Amino acid sequence: MCRLFAYSGEPVWLDTLLIEPEASLVSQSMAAREAKTVVNGDGCGLGWYGERERPGLYRDTLPAWSDANLAGLCHQIRSGAFMAHVRSATAGEVSRANCHPFALGRHLFMHNGQIGGYDRLRRRIDSLIPDEFYGHRHGTGDSEAIFLIAAGQGLETDPVWAIDRALRLCLSAMTDMGIADPLRFSAVLMDGETTHAFRWSSDARPPTLYWRALEGGIAFSSEPCSLDASLWTPLAPNSFVRLDSSSMIASRFDPASQNPCETVSGIASEATRSAA
Amino acid sequence: MCRLFAYSGEPVWLDTLLIEPEASLVSQSMAAREAKTVVNGDGCGLGWYGERERPGLYRDTLPAWSDANLAGLCHQIRSGAFMAHVRSATAGEVSRANCHPFALGRHLFMHNGQIGGYDRLRRRIDSLIPDEFYGHRHGTGDSEAIFLIAAGQGLETDPVWAIDRALRLCLSAMTDMGIADPLRFSAVLMDGETTHAFRWSSDARPPTLYWRALEGGIAFSSEPCSLDASLWTPLAPNSFVRLDSSSMIASRFDPASQNPCETVSGIASEATRSAA
Amino acid sequence: MCRLFAYSGEPVWLDTLLIEPEASLVSQSMAAREAKTVVNGDGCGLGWYGERERPGLYRDTLPAWSDANLAGLCHQIRSGAFMAHVRSATAGEVSRANCHPFALGRHLFMHNGQIGGYDRLRRRIDSLIPDEFYGHRHGTGDSEAIFLIAAGQGLETDPVWAIDRALRLCLSAMTDMGIADPLRFSAVLMDGETTHAFRWSSDARPPTLYWRALEGGIAFSSEPCSLDASLWTPLAPNSFVRLDSSSMIASRFDPASQNPCETVSGIASEATRSAA
Amino acid sequence: MCRLFAYSGEPVWLDTLLIEPEASLVSQSMAAREAKTVVNGDGCGLGWYGERERPGLYRDTLPAWSDANLAGLCHQIRSGAFMAHVRSATAGEVSRANCHPFALGRHLFMHNGQIGGYDRLRRRIDSLIPDEFYGHRHGTGDSEAIFLIAAGQGLETDPVWAIDRALRLCLSAMTDMGIADPLRFSAVLMDGETTHAFRWSSDARPPTLYWRALEGGIAFSSEPCSLDASLWTPLAPNSFVRLDSSSMIASRFDPASQNPCETVSGIASEATRSAA
Repeated sequence: MCRLFAYSGEPVWLDTLLIEPEASLVSQSMAAREAKTVVNGDGCGLGWYGERERPGLYRDTLPAWSDANLAGLCHQIRSGAFMAHVRSATAGEVSRANCHPFALGRHLFMHNGQIGGYDRLRRRIDSLIPDEFYGHRHGTGDSEAIFLIAAGQGLETDPVWAIDRALRLCLSAMTDMGIADPLRFSAVLMDGETTHAFRWSSDARPPTLYWRALEGGIAFSSEPCSLDASLWTPLAPNSFVRLDSSSMIASRFDPASQNPCETVSGIASEATRSAA
Repeated sequence: MCRLFAYSGEPVWLDTLLIEPEASLVSQSMAAREAKTVVNGDGCGLGWYGERERPGLYRDTLPAWSDANLAGLCHQIRSGAFMAHVRSATAGEVSRANCHPFALGRHLFMHNGQIGGYDRLRRRIDSLIPDEFYGHRHGTGDSEAIFLIAAGQGLETDPVWAIDRALRLCLSAMTDMGIADPLRFSAVLMDGETTHAFRWSSDARPPTLYWRALEGGIAFSSEPCSLDASLWTPLAPNSFVRLDSSSMIASRFDPASQNPCETVSGIASEATRSAA
Repeated sequence: MCRLFAYSGEPVWLDTLLIEPEASLVSQSMAAREAKTVVNGDGCGLGWYGERERPGLYRDTLPAWSDANLAGLCHQIRSGAFMAHVRSATAGEVSRANCHPFALGRHLFMHNGQIGGYDRLRRRIDSLIPDEFYGHRHGTGDSEAIFLIAAGQGLETDPVWAIDRALRLCLSAMTDMGIADPLRFSAVLMDGETTHAFRWSSDARPPTLYWRALEGGIAFSSEPCSLDASLWTPLAPNSFVRLDSSSMIASRFDPASQNPCETVSGIASEATRSAA
Repeated sequence: MCRLFAYSGEPVWLDTLLIEPEASLVSQSMAAREAKTVVNGDGCGLGWYGERERPGLYRDTLPAWSDANLAGLCHQIRSGAFMAHVRSATAGEVSRANCHPFALGRHLFMHNGQIGGYDRLRRRIDSLIPDEFYGHRHGTGDSEAIFLIAAGQGLETDPVWAIDRALRLCLSAMTDMGIADPLRFSAVLMDGETTHAFRWSSDARPPTLYWRALEGGIAFSSEPCSLDASLWTPLAPNSFVRLDSSSMIASRFDPASQNPCETVSGIASEATRSAA
């Protein structure tokens, strides 16, 4: 399992959130506390929004803890919307192309979890990516595939619907092949203005995902990025959060249910107030 | 376009053929003379047969000219059947997984050429790889795809038939999508005992491929690996050569023709005699 | 020989100068026209000034032409002072640490040229780096050594004097060992406010270095970065240029002469007027 | 701290010792049990003797657990004398050149431990390497430095004396600079016929080093490479073992003592009998 971190809010220097905290993402690359695998050393990646529409992207196969480039970029870059990821390879080679985040146009995406039985399903999963987006299939992992399948389901216009549809398509392929293993999905999707964070699994064990209101923004992380874990609030299982500059709304999210996703009014969390 | 080199015969130190000649493959990585691209610096690879059935495999993204590991291996390894490749990326990222040769069981495969319109065809080409072999799809390039499609067509029992079938399937996908660009295919396939070298294109310009009888064996190369180019004989366009310990037979090979491949008696080249 | 590029002036997107021009530095990595070696594929590097004092730094061993990270950074970063380098290894391994630019505090440095007989001189050259700066010796090449020797000679307070002193110390070591090969030095040094560009050699063949006034600033380059080479002006042999926000002054520079460096009034070039 | 493994005896397939055991070196790269650092993911290396005098050498910056090249080589190579290393960087960048083993002529060397205060001592340590061997200084770490200093002290003719002298020179430099931190040294040196394994420290805590008699040879390892740790015998602190085809002799080794090293008869261990 991988570790991920995202931030949206007032521009901050990346190193203040990704490197300096005692339990930062970079330190988690060598010693994650809530991950199945302690080591997340199969590459790292960073995506951030600046003045241009298309985000910046840096990915490499070196472990985050020894990557001087990553440290250099985090020192120099200030951004109000970015995400970073340290990888523990479950599906797909150790290669730059299999490192998160994945970028497509103005979108960035990263994922912690996996498609059960992916090794047996790979051809079917790949065939769910439309020709239009297949040229963006640079790696071989399940996370990039989910992202590109969603791209074909309307990510540009209705991202939650598209992610929901993509996961339903994957579930259907799993059912067809008689896969009993779960589909687990903790993920963050950004477009520079809106952040969506998902926590869901087809079984009862969705990968952890936390959020925390910082001074000028909201952070999401696979595990608390501070020694005092109580500062971080877990997302409810089978839910997603939609964050933009004016509000943060939590909603139910369950691609395994019969009904397509629906925003549930009334459970807007206190995050909205914190972020306001 | 890439550059490739293969050898079968009496065991030799790899550096005597891959590094020491003035126009060796490693020197071609920086200054190929017959290639479309002068530089073949997008990675390199080496596959060789030893005492075990499964061949050894080394691949890296560094250019061959600066790869100390490659030099070290070539100094230390002696083999009677090996192939090496320097890449100029046409399709697929610069990654280890996209470097040639590709290995599957006891087979090694490498390719110079390309599937015309591959960027538009990728999803269709991938779907021609059977589930059984899709787990071996580690990269994203066209060459590995052809190899794995052939694996699904019986590479183990009748390699020429399988390659012929794989190329016909690719041509068919190209026709379906209205691709006018050619499918070009110079390639070498080995299983430790038999070597097949192919030179074919769907248009009139198959990539070059030469052979030469050395003291104890036969070498194949994209271009003459010696300053005196006259020592090297080009394979006839649209033909393949089958080499084993007792003979070397050249045959017609044209997956664009109506008839499936057939061995044409009577054109066995003088190679047979040289190698004998 | 390597290729280098530097810019100082109004902030620009890096890709507009490093990637988009037809004869850009990235294209020079595969096909330099004025370099001894056509290919500069032994790594690349980028250093730039942003809002913080310490510059950002990115270096990798992949050739610039295939480095997606480099392209991503150049798309995203806008800077008013940056330098980039594509390497053809003459001294030192292919490693990140041997890639230019080199960073020390607020300084960035890159170099094209070499210390003659460096292989024999390495120990002596290294010993010219004071203990204080030896901890910053991350690589093994001659360029980083010159930079760190200069650091020990007062780079912080008088950079031209420090570079002059460093080169004199190297020349002296060469003389002691009876080295007849030249010391060649085209280089750029930046501190975020001031840019120094040097073109000098101990023989009559200093590596090329050009400058050009762009719309909002001044660029320096090993060779003209445009198809119309006449837009670029060569620096005079054995001279340096000092550029800051108000002026550009050219002066004589000859560490092989008896006199230490002196600013020669009267040869301030028309650059001053262009940049003004 | 790093982890290391060496073997000398009847030729074996490398994967049977380096990969297949449950507590193999490759598994130790992610989860070492006796190391200060659990993760040894800063590169890996392999050196082995074959038919030629000069050993083969493979090193890369990827963690051993994800390096397909390492696995491929270990499957294919059979050798009667080899060593392998997984690195946790204490001194020197993460680069190929800083990975162990180091090769010089027919010698291979690898090390676990460190020169106390190396960061402050680097220039002095480097200056202990004679010009003759300075050209072989490809990295920046302390281990390679010790090896090259020993090369200058007669490694070729009397390896134990040379290592002893090299460590005394380092100790002396440490004393000169007032370094209180210890010099720790567990290391293996091979020349294709003879293996020397050292376990020493200037304080009371020499890094662990074990040996075990296997069916056809002797293995050395930083920690027991099997679930049953009792099969492995620790080398006595401040001793070395000399192993060749006919005998295995243990002797005292203490470069911090007044007397130069001396072989102490009478403590030849039972290893001699096992190996016989």
